[in-house]
Amino acid sequence: MQKQYNLQDILLFDQRYRATFINSLGGFKSLVLVGTMGNNDKTNLAPFSSFVHLGANPPLFALIIRPDSVERHTLENIRSREEFTVNHVREDFYMQAHQCSARYPREQSEFDATGLIQEQLDGFSAPFVKQSIIKIGARFLREIEIKENGTVMLIAQIERVILPADCLEKDGFVDIEKARTVTCSGLDSYHSTHRIGRLCYAKPELQTRQIDQF
Amino acid sequence: MQKQYNLQDILLFDQRYRATFINSLGGFKSLVLVGTMGNNDKTNLAPFSSFVHLGANPPLFALIIRPDSVERHTLENIRSREEFTVNHVREDFYMQAHQCSARYPREQSEFDATGLIQEQLDGFSAPFVKQSIIKIGARFLREIEIKENGTVMLIAQIERVILPADCLEKDGFVDIEKARTVTCSGLDSYHSTHRIGRLCYAKPELQTRQIDQF
Repeated sequence: MQKQYNLQDILLFDQRYRATFINSLGGFKSLVLVGTMGNNDKTNLAPFSSFVHLGANPPLFALIIRPDSVERHTLENIRSREEFTVNHVREDFYMQAHQCSARYPREQSEFDATGLIQEQLDGFSAPFVKQSIIKIGARFLREIEIKENGTVMLIAQIERVILPADCLEKDGFVDIEKARTVTCSGLDSYHSTHRIGRLCYAKPELQTRQIDQF
Repeated sequence: MQKQYNLQDILLFDQRYRATFINSLGGFKSLVLVGTMGNNDKTNLAPFSSFVHLGANPPLFALIIRPDSVERHTLENIRSREEFTVNHVREDFYMQAHQCSARYPREQSEFDATGLIQEQLDGFSAPFVKQSIIKIGARFLREIEIKENGTVMLIAQIERVILPADCLEKDGFVDIEKARTVTCSGLDSYHSTHRIGRLCYAKPELQTRQIDQF
């Protein structure tokens, strides 16, 4: 049986029900931990499911941040220090990643609270997550206010990438499933993945087909 | 063994290698088919992996569009008609969804080219995908140019939702894994999922734990 809702129905939902509902509607999401350093030299770590690819040349991405949430410390730190890290989450520490969404006071680092280990890399001020095996060092470029709801979109550039050699295929594809990166849906659901296939570049005159080897 | 790349290395990559590499770095992504209707009353269908949640009240999301790609027809149609559809992709038609990324001429609808079936819903001009079981009817609100690389971010409102009753949990969570929605990584890799767990709302003083029933 199908259910159908219109905008009016959705606006009448209880607030938490609506947040849960709308958050799960957009499909599976990237899950990363964003590591930052404050002006007080305290580290901060927060989970984000809003990483979005903007382009490869230059290598740019965006993050959506809610200034009224636990993400606020992250936003302040990124504005003041500009460098931050993006760390893929694996199944063996997804619970700690989720715990980083709790509202810890500014003086308490989520690294200390959750047992995730911070790692400094040469000349990069923001902390990486040691347990993560695919990591990005990023530089904040600009922010755009989404005036419709007061969220902020950060635009950032990828300036450093660390990954396991055996997860990088010869065509540049990073096999994040092999790296055991997890995906999430909604506000709190975590999933591992199973590859169905990689498909060749699509052309109108060609039949869709799998990439045999990569 | 780890590999490490800095921005200069990435900028020196071959163009296609870099696109493949950077596209897979951000983690797993949502995969949806965006259905639109042109001013010529021709339908169009294009896969997107850039759906991003903006907020639940009002229910808003964004899509990133590359005006120089196959997504151009989609952008023109959305600008002129304002209504469009967002359709989750299931494993049983992921190849057809991928095939919609081929550069078909404007006169040819991707529905006709791929065998996906268009479905009109009462009073909504844009076409839904019949094979899809979780679908959103959306209204274009505004666009923001990302001047760093000429892409465009569309902001849209969710105005209609269609989903199977048995995928909607009592707390508002839509079980997209149960609906067999797929996720993608990079430009061409498709994955099914396996739930690891749903976790309770995180608080500093509480141990992270699973939601027992939902």
